[in-house]
Amino acid sequence: MKIAIYGYGNLGRGIEAAIKYNPDMELVGVFTRRCPETVKTLTGAPVFSADSVLEFKDKIDALIICGGSATDLPEMTPSLAKSFNVIDSFDTHAKIPEHIARVDKAAREGGKVALISCGWDPGLFSIARLYATAVLPSGKDYTFWGRGVSQGHSDAIRRIAGVVDARQYTVPIDAAISKVRGGECPELTTAQKHKRECYVVAEDGADKALIEKTIKEMPNYFADYDTSVEFVTLDDLRQNHGGMPHGGSVIRNGATGLSGENTHTIEFSLKLDSNPEFTASVLIAYARALTRLYARGEVGVKTVFDIAPVDLSPMSAEELRAHLL
Amino acid sequence: MKIAIYGYGNLGRGIEAAIKYNPDMELVGVFTRRCPETVKTLTGAPVFSADSVLEFKDKIDALIICGGSATDLPEMTPSLAKSFNVIDSFDTHAKIPEHIARVDKAAREGGKVALISCGWDPGLFSIARLYATAVLPSGKDYTFWGRGVSQGHSDAIRRIAGVVDARQYTVPIDAAISKVRGGECPELTTAQKHKRECYVVAEDGADKALIEKTIKEMPNYFADYDTSVEFVTLDDLRQNHGGMPHGGSVIRNGATGLSGENTHTIEFSLKLDSNPEFTASVLIAYARALTRLYARGEVGVKTVFDIAPVDLSPMSAEELRAHLL
Repeated sequence: MKIAIYGYGNLGRGIEAAIKYNPDMELVGVFTRRCPETVKTLTGAPVFSADSVLEFKDKIDALIICGGSATDLPEMTPSLAKSFNVIDSFDTHAKIPEHIARVDKAAREGGKVALISCGWDPGLFSIARLYATAVLPSGKDYTFWGRGVSQGHSDAIRRIAGVVDARQYTVPIDAAISKVRGGECPELTTAQKHKRECYVVAEDGADKALIEKTIKEMPNYFADYDTSVEFVTLDDLRQNHGGMPHGGSVIRNGATGLSGENTHTIEFSLKLDSNPEFTASVLIAYARALTRLYARGEVGVKTVFDIAPVDLSPMSAEELRAHLL
Repeated sequence: MKIAIYGYGNLGRGIEAAIKYNPDMELVGVFTRRCPETVKTLTGAPVFSADSVLEFKDKIDALIICGGSATDLPEMTPSLAKSFNVIDSFDTHAKIPEHIARVDKAAREGGKVALISCGWDPGLFSIARLYATAVLPSGKDYTFWGRGVSQGHSDAIRRIAGVVDARQYTVPIDAAISKVRGGECPELTTAQKHKRECYVVAEDGADKALIEKTIKEMPNYFADYDTSVEFVTLDDLRQNHGGMPHGGSVIRNGATGLSGENTHTIEFSLKLDSNPEFTASVLIAYARALTRLYARGEVGVKTVFDIAPVDLSPMSAEELRAHLL
């Protein structure tokens, strides 16, 4: 299976590293919008200019697009879906239907198959919600994120005057998780489920009190949350907050029985040392499925909901039935 | 969707109760090998003789076979798969390939589709193992069962002379779960992961010490385990151990990164008030998928691995993409 990476940031590097765990895959190379000579890959994989990607039209089984959801993917995925089987991790929930429509049109024009919004949320968490909801139709589900670094929230802090660098952790509130795990179905807003921990490096002489106030009062990002701010040195930030851990849980409680007398809890949880490397691992497994779908003649856009588990594995259906069922 | 139940024990009753949570389904009735007049259903659903099932050949979209894996299902499922789309919960892991082959042959002869080994283990736990293994190929997974009632182990105790009734709980060992949740990959036998709690009602004047010894030394069932035996009254057993709770966790730890430097933990857990009602809820969701597969012209045997999540839900693909992705 010939895989290529389009866009070489944290996620792209994660894909490159994940290839070695999947012996049925081969990395054709990395496409970048930067000058290829300036990009050095982790494994020495070749780097090509993004402008040359169409020259590889028949040399790539699945092209994994590693761009941002805000501006990159809405353009890149439909444009590339005409010529390649593509996968992206588009995660702007509200715009998914629009993105789906545009990618579907492009993929059908080119006779290709595309998978959008893959990763862990959207992705594995979405699947967990679907299975749990189908099995327990009468119930309620909860998604908790963290403890983990939120890139968007960290960036929001960095934009404040006087801030050198910052890292924000989204932290699920224990009391809320415990209640839900215990089978209760409380009404909880996102802010009632999560608190926000900020580690901030301030410029020398900056007004720390003002920075803290600015963070805590920032609408949408922090104002509604229990937010803590701790000022640290740049060394401390690098040493103790340099990683990209994340995770979370999807929990659904549902009733069964003639009068709903029995309660069941389904939980799917992730604890991740590296958000981009794990996301990459999910994308790689779905690249395998996508290649198989294309070989079977499927076209158009797909989501993780459309992919049968069997297509994710390098093992044959017989092996899976004998060993994992 | 017209559903029928073949075999009316705890699981069959669970299916009957689950129908009401699925408004797109209708219960045709219950087929029993007992005299139909002696069987009273929970909801007043009609009861038919198992012998008359072929008269319903074109009136049932999915027939859910609720029999035991030891002797019922190996006969029933292949025999009924010729005439109906069937689902069973066959759980004798070692014999799954043989069962699959026989059911596949029968279903193909009849132009029907069949789903075997559905429920939560095999079933949702199998799926959890597959997703986790596909995403983290370099890793190790663990399945913990319980705390929950094991019917097989309870029956084994009941067969001991002097025992009136008994209930056995399979209990995962906290220290083992904590180690695995913490990202470690120890080698653990089933006995190192679970202990066994037995609640036993003895006949008046029975030799309790001998009963306890017989339980604790019973090969395969108890001898290898940390087993506790508590004698209780029949009233106590009925009041405090009358339910059929169960559950468990599938946990996989795996590495990513160029030198495996990052560890990730994927966990899928269930906490069930009623094992048969939850299993029934899973079977019902897969009955929906089976009916759709048949409508698309598929034939032969399937497992939960072959079913895309989208087919389990009564919601349309568009609704799912908009609301659960």
